[in-house]
Amino acid sequence: MFLKNKIQASLVSLLLVVASCNAQSKATSNAKKSNKQEHPSLVLTKAGVEKIKSQLGTVPLFDKTLANVKAEVDAEILNGIEVPIPKDFSGGYTHERHKRNFVILQKAGVLYQILDDEKYAKYVKDMLLEYAKVYPTLPVHPQTRSYARGKLFWQCLNDSNWLVYTSQAYDCVYNYLSEKERKHLEKDLFKPFAKFISAGNPQFFNRVHNHSTWGNVAVGMIALVMDDDKLLQTALYGLKTDNIDPNAKDNDGGFIKKEGQKVGFLANLEEPFSPDGYYTEGPYYQRYAMYPFLVFAEALENVKPELKIFEYKDGVLLKSISTLLNLTDAYGNFFPLNDGQKGMSYYSKELVSAVDIGYHFGGHSTDLLTIAKAQDEVLLDDTGLSVAMGVRDGLETPFVKKSIDLSDGKNGDEGGVAVLRANTEKSELSLVMKYSAQGLSHGHYDKLSYSLYEGGNEVIQDYGMSRFVNIQQKGGGNYLKENTTWAKQTIAHNTINQDETSHFAGDFETGSMHHSEKYLFDVSNTNLQIISAKEVNAYPGTKMHRTMAFINEEAFENPYLLDIIKINAEKEHQYDLPYYYLGQIMSTNFKYTKPETLEPLGSKNGYQHLWKEAEGKSETSNAQISWFNKERFYTLTSVVSTDDEILFTRVGANDPSFNLRNDPGVIIRKKDSKDTYFVSIIESHGHYDPVSEIATNAFSSIKKLKIVYSDDAYIAINIETLPNVSRLFLFSLIDNSKNSKHQLKIEDETYEWLGAYQLTEINK
Amino acid sequence: MFLKNKIQASLVSLLLVVASCNAQSKATSNAKKSNKQEHPSLVLTKAGVEKIKSQLGTVPLFDKTLANVKAEVDAEILNGIEVPIPKDFSGGYTHERHKRNFVILQKAGVLYQILDDEKYAKYVKDMLLEYAKVYPTLPVHPQTRSYARGKLFWQCLNDSNWLVYTSQAYDCVYNYLSEKERKHLEKDLFKPFAKFISAGNPQFFNRVHNHSTWGNVAVGMIALVMDDDKLLQTALYGLKTDNIDPNAKDNDGGFIKKEGQKVGFLANLEEPFSPDGYYTEGPYYQRYAMYPFLVFAEALENVKPELKIFEYKDGVLLKSISTLLNLTDAYGNFFPLNDGQKGMSYYSKELVSAVDIGYHFGGHSTDLLTIAKAQDEVLLDDTGLSVAMGVRDGLETPFVKKSIDLSDGKNGDEGGVAVLRANTEKSELSLVMKYSAQGLSHGHYDKLSYSLYEGGNEVIQDYGMSRFVNIQQKGGGNYLKENTTWAKQTIAHNTINQDETSHFAGDFETGSMHHSEKYLFDVSNTNLQIISAKEVNAYPGTKMHRTMAFINEEAFENPYLLDIIKINAEKEHQYDLPYYYLGQIMSTNFKYTKPETLEPLGSKNGYQHLWKEAEGKSETSNAQISWFNKERFYTLTSVVSTDDEILFTRVGANDPSFNLRNDPGVIIRKKDSKDTYFVSIIESHGHYDPVSEIATNAFSSIKKLKIVYSDDAYIAINIETLPNVSRLFLFSLIDNSKNSKHQLKIEDETYEWLGAYQLTEINK
Repeated sequence: MFLKNKIQASLVSLLLVVASCNAQSKATSNAKKSNKQEHPSLVLTKAGVEKIKSQLGTVPLFDKTLANVKAEVDAEILNGIEVPIPKDFSGGYTHERHKRNFVILQKAGVLYQILDDEKYAKYVKDMLLEYAKVYPTLPVHPQTRSYARGKLFWQCLNDSNWLVYTSQAYDCVYNYLSEKERKHLEKDLFKPFAKFISAGNPQFFNRVHNHSTWGNVAVGMIALVMDDDKLLQTALYGLKTDNIDPNAKDNDGGFIKKEGQKVGFLANLEEPFSPDGYYTEGPYYQRYAMYPFLVFAEALENVKPELKIFEYKDGVLLKSISTLLNLTDAYGNFFPLNDGQKGMSYYSKELVSAVDIGYHFGGHSTDLLTIAKAQDEVLLDDTGLSVAMGVRDGLETPFVKKSIDLSDGKNGDEGGVAVLRANTEKSELSLVMKYSAQGLSHGHYDKLSYSLYEGGNEVIQDYGMSRFVNIQQKGGGNYLKENTTWAKQTIAHNTINQDETSHFAGDFETGSMHHSEKYLFDVSNTNLQIISAKEVNAYPGTKMHRTMAFINEEAFENPYLLDIIKINAEKEHQYDLPYYYLGQIMSTNFKYTKPETLEPLGSKNGYQHLWKEAEGKSETSNAQISWFNKERFYTLTSVVSTDDEILFTRVGANDPSFNLRNDPGVIIRKKDSKDTYFVSIIESHGHYDPVSEIATNAFSSIKKLKIVYSDDAYIAINIETLPNVSRLFLFSLIDNSKNSKHQLKIEDETYEWLGAYQLTEINK
Repeated sequence: MFLKNKIQASLVSLLLVVASCNAQSKATSNAKKSNKQEHPSLVLTKAGVEKIKSQLGTVPLFDKTLANVKAEVDAEILNGIEVPIPKDFSGGYTHERHKRNFVILQKAGVLYQILDDEKYAKYVKDMLLEYAKVYPTLPVHPQTRSYARGKLFWQCLNDSNWLVYTSQAYDCVYNYLSEKERKHLEKDLFKPFAKFISAGNPQFFNRVHNHSTWGNVAVGMIALVMDDDKLLQTALYGLKTDNIDPNAKDNDGGFIKKEGQKVGFLANLEEPFSPDGYYTEGPYYQRYAMYPFLVFAEALENVKPELKIFEYKDGVLLKSISTLLNLTDAYGNFFPLNDGQKGMSYYSKELVSAVDIGYHFGGHSTDLLTIAKAQDEVLLDDTGLSVAMGVRDGLETPFVKKSIDLSDGKNGDEGGVAVLRANTEKSELSLVMKYSAQGLSHGHYDKLSYSLYEGGNEVIQDYGMSRFVNIQQKGGGNYLKENTTWAKQTIAHNTINQDETSHFAGDFETGSMHHSEKYLFDVSNTNLQIISAKEVNAYPGTKMHRTMAFINEEAFENPYLLDIIKINAEKEHQYDLPYYYLGQIMSTNFKYTKPETLEPLGSKNGYQHLWKEAEGKSETSNAQISWFNKERFYTLTSVVSTDDEILFTRVGANDPSFNLRNDPGVIIRKKDSKDTYFVSIIESHGHYDPVSEIATNAFSSIKKLKIVYSDDAYIAINIETLPNVSRLFLFSLIDNSKNSKHQLKIEDETYEWLGAYQLTEINK
């Protein structure tokens, strides 16, 4: 309540300021006329500023953001200017101070334009002059960890962040500054700054990577302000020469640059985005890259509309916004594919930008307004105004996340990521199935892996990354060694492990050469949605084919997840399939033993991080495990032989600094197998309310799960719910055509169907 | 949205029903005149029903509840009547069916009165006749686990639940039934039912226990309907003879009855409630008992107002409502003192009753309306109408939970429970410190234990109980053996363990003879709130004195928790003090080693359930451990010697059926100690937002914590935050008078203060 009042009070005083500044405004606009290029022109335009001023006080979302930003910047102005000599890693004082400086600079510049209050321009000027004072003599940053050390920060990446934001501030106060001041700033600060992060660090600048995107955009933004076309060309197409060793790698183990690879902003737009707008590093890094991509696109569209940047690669930038929003759970959190910190969501400032820019330049898609309304803030620029006006006018329509299949790779031919979404009575189930390319240096070794969500809650989790971003106590906030030894390894994922080794033997170069292949994606029937993909390179000599389907049937409370993995190997191997459930084991249909002492499950490839908590074998042909999490019951039913081992694990072994979360898992292990299947069903069922203490539908509906037919061409699964009541899932493993006719004889009964799969009820 | 529309639709049709039933209403009220006692008279009264009818459609909370209840009962009526032969434990079909039956019976009775629709009366009649058909020949329940087996359910407790609800239904349809029908029901169902749970089971009925409360009330309620004064006397004062063996125990290990103990409803009201309204079993069971206590009080007040039940024992029943509401966290969940399932809250139906009855009969305390509004439902009776009218009229005032000290024991002289609450910038910290009596059979061996909350989140948790109430897979939903081997043991709590044994050697009889003693409770200064208590019986020959204070100072972001335990023992012992933090370890100021394999920390008294994950020793005189949970940082700073061991543990060893939660803990262990101190501070500091990825104030403010003086009379603690900036906490261990003057010389400086404690800033 207090905060709300405060905002309202600020808003009132702010409107007074606007009213009292009209006179001053005219003086400013006289000054503008003397310049060749109009300012501001990057994220604010002259026309845009006028429109904003005319709407102020009538656009609640914009007004509220403005009041918040004004309060924030006013507090910083009171605090005074601090430009410390760089010293710390992220999380440390100098790092956080310089980071805060560029954020506030950008905001102060915008406030100057919108409110016409000189104190903001003066603040920007004073701080820029402080930077111009220290920059010429600044050595590279004293922390030596980065492959591309910055000057203000320990890595050029953060220096680039600084310039992307500060360019906007400079653009906003350009006309406020004298020509002499501008010359001084450009000579002593902006030009050498741009040079340092480009020609000074080609290994950083001349790449296809989110780091380079930031570098390219930083240089491009300042080039636009300074009207420096040569520098703009460098931003768009990269440095002409760089002498980068084709074997060189960055700190994450990623290659710097393939030989002959195109570089610069356009190459960074061209290559990592698939035609569907999927960014190969995954949504966490896509989110990070979105801001520079979009803010620069906005600036280019404003200053160089002839480039038609939003139409580039069939409009991929705008597509990528919708793609990214679709890669979120019900809470708006991004699915943690590859390296991704859980909890990052479409509430991040990068997504505020993305949604606003996407709305303004992408034909005013009204479903974006729903996201903007949830974000509860907008950009203080032309795009934010559009959004705020749209919300004010009640134009929003629901943002519906559909089942989608997103291709990976520059040309969309390097596998992909599928998201199946199925409604339950109260929520929805989401399956995220990954059959993509490696995903550059942040990629995990997890071909054909998946995670499963109910609403915004994880049912079968992807571990995410082992890093506490910006939390200094944990390795300076950087990647922890457990990210390599655990989080990236195959066993950390819900997919097949052969002989306790990771896919591609955990080798980045090998992994980068391959991708999985889609076999089938069909969501045309909402009651049977299916994704199927193959992987033949992860383990040479072994073929894996995984098919996952949400099936919605009356016999079940909710859609259930059918999962079929067919393995064909040239030799005998051990296969492990983990299920990283969350919550507490309720019951099993088999006996297990828990050891007196806990030992790690293995010694390498991530296995060294798992405690073996229990093991058992099923005497029936099914292993059934029920667990409870967040007031819901879940049951895994898996087809097993009496030789298969069922292992209960917990993450946390060989973790000397408590870096890992101690999450549970179950592994189905098949030993000495050449050709084999993993067939299972996961059900979400029932509910328990700790207030009423009533448990409903707490048991699985499945009586028996059985492979009733299998050869190289077909598999048929029988799912029994009651005695003599079952359904048969029929699947062609080699013909994915919609139009092929199939015929299969099972136990004296002949089944015929059209297309790769069929579900048939059998009530005997 | 869908649900809301449905409710509105129901409401409309309901109002139509009301309108069309006026004619019928008159017929019913003619029938009433022929009866000696007015009906309904228990929870609904004739006058109340008229008032309800006159207000319908104008009291949103009441109208909404009515619509929901009508929809629920209508669905059950469509479903038809099922009275199965009893067979199952809780969670099983017959148990849940009979439970549902009595809930629906009560509601149907109420609907008949309010809506005048005969279908509800007929439903009640038909079902009662079904019960009357089977009851005379029903044997005791086939499940043999209970010390007092019921007939409809496996324990008399649930049979009593049935009768408490069903009595209300009978009252509502009394005048609808013919005299012959009433005679039949009373002869074949109600009288034998009441007899079975009283004279038939004196070990259940003639006790002071929540079970007996239900039994007494069941008999009392049906006595009121039947106007059977003799039966009412039995309910109020118990059976005159019972022949209970004074050594007999129930299934939880609790004594059935002390010799010469008073029994019956009034004794159950007299004994377990302290004068402050604290119920000795703890809030979870108080909540469970509240419904019979209050519904019977309501009925007595309506039928026998001359008893002045709400004035009994200085108005303890009404006091207990406020007490119970104060024993909740910021989410409204009860603190899990003794056996208590986490998640149970003031949203439970028992608390809806309590709040409504408390408001109606307790002088219309408008703060209760805030709780009622959050509960979003009311009782469909005179009391619920009062509340709904109050809410409609906007009378509610905030329900402010203050720091309180609640005495335990019939006379308030058997220790107690203190709750200290201190505001933080965004939330509040709550300390629950327990120095009470044993708490009957549901008590835990945890003298001087505590739990700490921030907002509704646990910072230092109390494990609660090891039971999944009504979840059949887990031991039929009953207490698990780990409740005895782990949850009740001292090591499962945040208090002192001597020689790896529980308080009173875990012996219930011994524990029941003793209680801790308050030394000091003072919350007059919101910046220094303090609770101090002593325990001298838990370990014979050892005295423990624990003092805990929330201190609010400018040098700290939030109030911090100072914790001082002084131990005086006749012999040398090992002392363990656990901290059951939640979340992930961020850093420590000492080295620790993690073993290759995990072993249990001990072999008995709960220690067998702890894995030893790591151990270390501090080379400085402080052990500092920081962790992270729910976006907040926490730091424990503890005074240690270089000999003290710091153990990191995780619950879950020797847990053959995954019954335990795998929660972490830290134990400070002092070996071979006679007289010693545990002095520590817990800080909540800083914040991390996974969306902005910014960590603020992530480090402790404490540089050093030191005991600078200690003898039998005094202790002085120095808390250093910056070099040469500290404060001194001075405390008298033997004189708790507010008016005593103290003088202490520490390092050549003399300190003087008034009262038991003093905090003095020192800036050298």
